[in-house]
Amino acid sequence: MDEFRGMKWDGTALSFLEQTLLPEEEVVIRTVDWKVIVDAIQRLAIRGAPAIGVAAAFATVLAWRETPSRGKWFEAVSNIESARPTAVNLSWAVNKLMKSIEGAETSEFDKILTGEAEKIASDDESMCEDIAKHGMELIKQDSVALTHCNTGILVSYGIGTSFGVLRRAHEAGKLKELYSCEARPLGQGSRLTIWESDKLGIPATLLCDSAAGRLMQSGKVDFVMLGADRIAANGDTANKVGTFNLAVLAKFHNIPFYVAAPSSTFDLNTADGDGIPVEQRDAAEVKTCRGKSVTIENATVFNPAFDVTPSELITAFVREDGIVYPPYEFCS
Amino acid sequence: MDEFRGMKWDGTALSFLEQTLLPEEEVVIRTVDWKVIVDAIQRLAIRGAPAIGVAAAFATVLAWRETPSRGKWFEAVSNIESARPTAVNLSWAVNKLMKSIEGAETSEFDKILTGEAEKIASDDESMCEDIAKHGMELIKQDSVALTHCNTGILVSYGIGTSFGVLRRAHEAGKLKELYSCEARPLGQGSRLTIWESDKLGIPATLLCDSAAGRLMQSGKVDFVMLGADRIAANGDTANKVGTFNLAVLAKFHNIPFYVAAPSSTFDLNTADGDGIPVEQRDAAEVKTCRGKSVTIENATVFNPAFDVTPSELITAFVREDGIVYPPYEFCS
Repeated sequence: MDEFRGMKWDGTALSFLEQTLLPEEEVVIRTVDWKVIVDAIQRLAIRGAPAIGVAAAFATVLAWRETPSRGKWFEAVSNIESARPTAVNLSWAVNKLMKSIEGAETSEFDKILTGEAEKIASDDESMCEDIAKHGMELIKQDSVALTHCNTGILVSYGIGTSFGVLRRAHEAGKLKELYSCEARPLGQGSRLTIWESDKLGIPATLLCDSAAGRLMQSGKVDFVMLGADRIAANGDTANKVGTFNLAVLAKFHNIPFYVAAPSSTFDLNTADGDGIPVEQRDAAEVKTCRGKSVTIENATVFNPAFDVTPSELITAFVREDGIVYPPYEFCS
Repeated sequence: MDEFRGMKWDGTALSFLEQTLLPEEEVVIRTVDWKVIVDAIQRLAIRGAPAIGVAAAFATVLAWRETPSRGKWFEAVSNIESARPTAVNLSWAVNKLMKSIEGAETSEFDKILTGEAEKIASDDESMCEDIAKHGMELIKQDSVALTHCNTGILVSYGIGTSFGVLRRAHEAGKLKELYSCEARPLGQGSRLTIWESDKLGIPATLLCDSAAGRLMQSGKVDFVMLGADRIAANGDTANKVGTFNLAVLAKFHNIPFYVAAPSSTFDLNTADGDGIPVEQRDAAEVKTCRGKSVTIENATVFNPAFDVTPSELITAFVREDGIVYPPYEFCS
């Protein structure tokens, strides 16, 4: 990949930045194997709701090319769909593809599926730009953002969701600087957002998740903006663990708290946050940091990948179709 | 040291557990050099308000033994007192020793200073037990605690402050289990509290600081109990960064939030939290985790060692002289 981007489809194979090696190594993996993509999603080498959706779409195409018979393919598709439990974009993308071939001849499947996946990808690209365009309206001149986790080129087929807003706002001279939480255990903030900001020349400061309260207390933050993995119909938002901490802290400090996410992240079949499954991940993630042990060998661990922010803590949602203020009642 | 303790004075030298090597290595340093103690305080090899006070007292004794002349000694004492800016126990201990020799002959200094330092140490030991005795009254049968940082044998000359409460409550069958935040950047929770709990057979679960909100959201925590580095006259409390996050989250969830600390931690000359200096520590602490880099080389960092929890978020203070409920108005 020549451009600064996280993912690229060339008609034959999907190329993506191997995120687990960042920021030290910028390795691009090019694959025609859907199982490599599923594995990458599970290892968080590909992560972030929109990117997962696009990757799942191309994985579904590649699975058909590998085994162009319904039975075998359905098996693969089911594996793709269940690669991770929380992100709704997986099934969203897969369903879109399944729907596209309804009533079609199998001889047409490759062409139809490929076209549909490519459309998902290009829609994703313009979706990012639309989110950025709307999100910028919320940002005052010379303001300072706090963000969490990573939501830029690595999580989408374009400039990303909430980080895309911050990026365009910086280019427009509105965003002065940003703070990024580390996002332990996997450090998507320290490893990825700080790396991406540096690449793009955005002044960024790293802090430990534990220091977010002190940062707000010091009056350094004008607004919080971050992404989402799944949003229920009432606006309750599942996102990277630590998001809910920031929402409660922002409320305490009267700091606006914005969630930027595409409409595909809204799961209208889930009434509220109680219905969102929260993935518990391996204890080893917490017991180590970049491979180094941080505790005793037999430590017991609580390691939810996400938390759920109640909608009453969210000042506004930024979507590709505009800004949504409370009361939230999303429906199709 | 044969017993399970963090620090021991034998009349000649101070022995202490080198905390930076825990939990992998249990190395005891025995020294007669006050500069080794000051260095240990600065490196956080000795940390926690009461332990810093006791260590500073013995450092003052050892400095006198090294240079038994007022001028040179005063210089050393001033270095000891300013080893770290936030903990009030440093100057509290040093002042106690300086006061003890008022009007005495220099020939008597060694004996008087040693006696006073030993009294500070043994008072500290019984202070810990008294805090535990009072703190236990707050703990209901079979309850679950969340704690932050490390407040046991390593922070005192005895069983510690808030961890001492939890330890005695577990021995009494009242505390079922505890959760400990990691406490990035230096991991006093993951490295020390989890290690100490394991040594004492207390069921303990480690979580990232980012997961504290989700933990409370899941209904797993009955109360929060932690220590303090400095408490202002109005009850505003400086403690390990991340404490304020937990206080705001506990308030949001209606979970009792207790601070256990000796009266020496109360700085009555400071009216409120605004007057407490918050130490900014080296960027390298955040840019690495146990020596491994977690971000890009030239990352900018926000690294406050402490935050300040406003007193209105604190349900009660546990001191060696009893439990204090709001309204808080501490005076001498």
